[in-house]
Amino acid sequence: MRPPRLSRALLVPVVLATVAASLLTSGAARAAGEAGAVDMLPILAGLVLILVGAKLGGTLFESIGQPAVLGELLAGVVLGNLGLVGIHALESLRTDLGLSILAQIGVLFLLFQVGLGSDVQKMMAVGVSSFMVALLGVITPMVLGYFVSLWFFPAHHPLTHWFVGATLTATSVGITARVLADLRRTDSTEGRIILGAAVIDDVMGLIVLAVVAGIIAAADRGAAFQPVTVLWIGGKSLLFLLGAVIVGRWLSERTFKLAARLRGEGILVAVALAFCFGIAYLAGRVGLAPIVGAFAAGLVLDEVHYRELNERHHEGRDLHELLKPIAAFLVPVFFVLMGIRVDLAAFAQPGVLGFATVLTLVAALGKQACSLGVFEKECDRLAVGLGMIPRGEVGLIFASIGSTLMIAGERVVDAAVFSAVVVMVSLTTLVTPPLLVWRLRAIDARAATREKPGRR
Amino acid sequence: MRPPRLSRALLVPVVLATVAASLLTSGAARAAGEAGAVDMLPILAGLVLILVGAKLGGTLFESIGQPAVLGELLAGVVLGNLGLVGIHALESLRTDLGLSILAQIGVLFLLFQVGLGSDVQKMMAVGVSSFMVALLGVITPMVLGYFVSLWFFPAHHPLTHWFVGATLTATSVGITARVLADLRRTDSTEGRIILGAAVIDDVMGLIVLAVVAGIIAAADRGAAFQPVTVLWIGGKSLLFLLGAVIVGRWLSERTFKLAARLRGEGILVAVALAFCFGIAYLAGRVGLAPIVGAFAAGLVLDEVHYRELNERHHEGRDLHELLKPIAAFLVPVFFVLMGIRVDLAAFAQPGVLGFATVLTLVAALGKQACSLGVFEKECDRLAVGLGMIPRGEVGLIFASIGSTLMIAGERVVDAAVFSAVVVMVSLTTLVTPPLLVWRLRAIDARAATREKPGRR
Repeated sequence: MRPPRLSRALLVPVVLATVAASLLTSGAARAAGEAGAVDMLPILAGLVLILVGAKLGGTLFESIGQPAVLGELLAGVVLGNLGLVGIHALESLRTDLGLSILAQIGVLFLLFQVGLGSDVQKMMAVGVSSFMVALLGVITPMVLGYFVSLWFFPAHHPLTHWFVGATLTATSVGITARVLADLRRTDSTEGRIILGAAVIDDVMGLIVLAVVAGIIAAADRGAAFQPVTVLWIGGKSLLFLLGAVIVGRWLSERTFKLAARLRGEGILVAVALAFCFGIAYLAGRVGLAPIVGAFAAGLVLDEVHYRELNERHHEGRDLHELLKPIAAFLVPVFFVLMGIRVDLAAFAQPGVLGFATVLTLVAALGKQACSLGVFEKECDRLAVGLGMIPRGEVGLIFASIGSTLMIAGERVVDAAVFSAVVVMVSLTTLVTPPLLVWRLRAIDARAATREKPGRR
Repeated sequence: MRPPRLSRALLVPVVLATVAASLLTSGAARAAGEAGAVDMLPILAGLVLILVGAKLGGTLFESIGQPAVLGELLAGVVLGNLGLVGIHALESLRTDLGLSILAQIGVLFLLFQVGLGSDVQKMMAVGVSSFMVALLGVITPMVLGYFVSLWFFPAHHPLTHWFVGATLTATSVGITARVLADLRRTDSTEGRIILGAAVIDDVMGLIVLAVVAGIIAAADRGAAFQPVTVLWIGGKSLLFLLGAVIVGRWLSERTFKLAARLRGEGILVAVALAFCFGIAYLAGRVGLAPIVGAFAAGLVLDEVHYRELNERHHEGRDLHELLKPIAAFLVPVFFVLMGIRVDLAAFAQPGVLGFATVLTLVAALGKQACSLGVFEKECDRLAVGLGMIPRGEVGLIFASIGSTLMIAGERVVDAAVFSAVVVMVSLTTLVTPPLLVWRLRAIDARAATREKPGRR
């Protein structure tokens, strides 16, 4: 297979986007026949652009030895920033509710698949490292973020600096999980430590947010902060995780045993998805990210649970195979949409770029402290540190909460800080795939060299 | 496999719904961590209920010899009408935007699959019958609707009666397509005539709406009606259908030839879906239902088009197999949601029930005129007439447009008429599966008896 010519490959998405843009804007006079229903047309147009963009971007980057996910992200960046060359029609993609929902379901699938490919025992075996990686990865960026904010905005209230630090804490595991999957390294020691740490990290991030936001709200009211609320929030999410692993396994076994008695087609897919969505829902209810629940659902769902179901229905293939087409549809929607949401214009705002650059550096370097938490000898510490870099929605959510909090009459997160957080999220997302690929390949190369005399 | 006990099977969805309802309402204090993002939790809870309900309902009805789709519809009716027994928490399912979008994508998949299983040549062979079936099925209910409206509301403006007639015209092919698929009769003569007629019917419905709404708008302004707009609307959609069949085939071949050069996983699924969504989008742009586009996309996409792609990527399985898991996820969402939207309370409105009953009868009987349009000898005319009964979204869309139109100071479609249309849509949807199953089984039984001496 010869690699596609770069220039043409780059041209195609631009031309496509231009055509789509003209279609989207031309004749706003849509037939009256659609009034009253959900307007599916922008969603359909968006899906076509996203799927085509994802595959073109993926092909381009795979042909230069990079993971497909980077191509999908950059295809999204192109689609989302055509406004810079005067094409504004696609900007609605960034806020389209339908695409956003499909993307969220897509990332649930990804983590469910990753969970299915993971093993509780093996995850537990690196549990101490995962915990330490998460802890160091929360504390270091938070402290660094505090000082960066203090340096740039010395006049702000000290609590606002802590809030900026808090936006740097939570790792967004989607990108790393996808890179690991693209490189088939999900089941490596590094992969397991990162995935475990990301789950714990999410719990810690939740606690950090509760503490910082609670202290700020109490300070603004002049009241004392109630540590008991924080205990409750932390306890709830730990309870969920324990429950998911212990009760979840039993529940999965029971569910599929009962489901084996159902009739009709597609039972395995429907029941497995209901299980995944159910646990994801419960995770969301205790305040964790739903993807943590989807991962837990995959983790506890074991092939033996649905063996009986499969034998009765002769659906024959295993769940992993059945989920592939759904993932092929929905997972790219998530990554392309993440790219679309990278707002290049935010990089150019005066007074933002300096702070954003330092914040991004601190975000990336701060997570390198994670490598100190790895106790396994055969594990590459740098790979773990790099895998923890991406910040995602959680950082943005923190920032948006901060922009609603007031202290001493000033907003905790103002427009400039918010833009800087957006830039930080974008950059940490975009730099991780190439860095992680570079590192994992270097390990492989080293291993290959070491083994050369013996085996190859 | 022993059939599930009926009483228990009925109990489970109710208990599940009650638990879910309490979860949905309890502690509205969701963690602040979610502010700013799409709230996925109601969608996830809804999907769990829908998937579990679909499979329980499907099992129940398959075990009594009815198609799964009827069980899915009735599971939805139960979920959507728990308000009648005091549980109101699930009523938000009826209007949830996310579920609605997933359902719309689900019905696109269904029609795409049906299209993939159909053959243009064979469709064309029964084209004359399809056209006559569509024509008779539009005219008869419309005329009958006019007289029913005149009978119940003699004081209304004559044009409002024509509008009521118009709401009875368009067949909603989703239900029939699903029943045909459940019974593996998509490729029968009856199946082909119904599918073809439903496509043509959609074009005619569009023209009828444009004419009636145009005349009403013109009459209200005191201006003359411009027939040229109607010509343009009809011409556009005919052009689309011709284009889809002729250009679509060429486009499909080219697209998959180019796609064979892409790299990465899931290319076939992604490209096929982009093709389906693209044609569905274009159908929507000319004012047709997007499902007509999805059906056309499936119709022109031929296995030979993606043979090269499959050989290069060793994805091995054919598209039909790959789409199955996606359909298993999304198609039930459509049918359960249709059931959820059946508002039993609408049946009990004073002054509605009489009109609604007669309107439903006229809607069902009016389509029986379709059987006169069938010229094939070996085709069961009653099955065609029954298959054309369901009215769906299009009827509701017509009604909602009517409620925005005014003539001589009165609303063309008032609240009572609107409710009656809702009841008509619900009932025609619910009666079709059992009637069609009964008829198709009767044909099979007759054929078996006739063949008995020879073969069995």
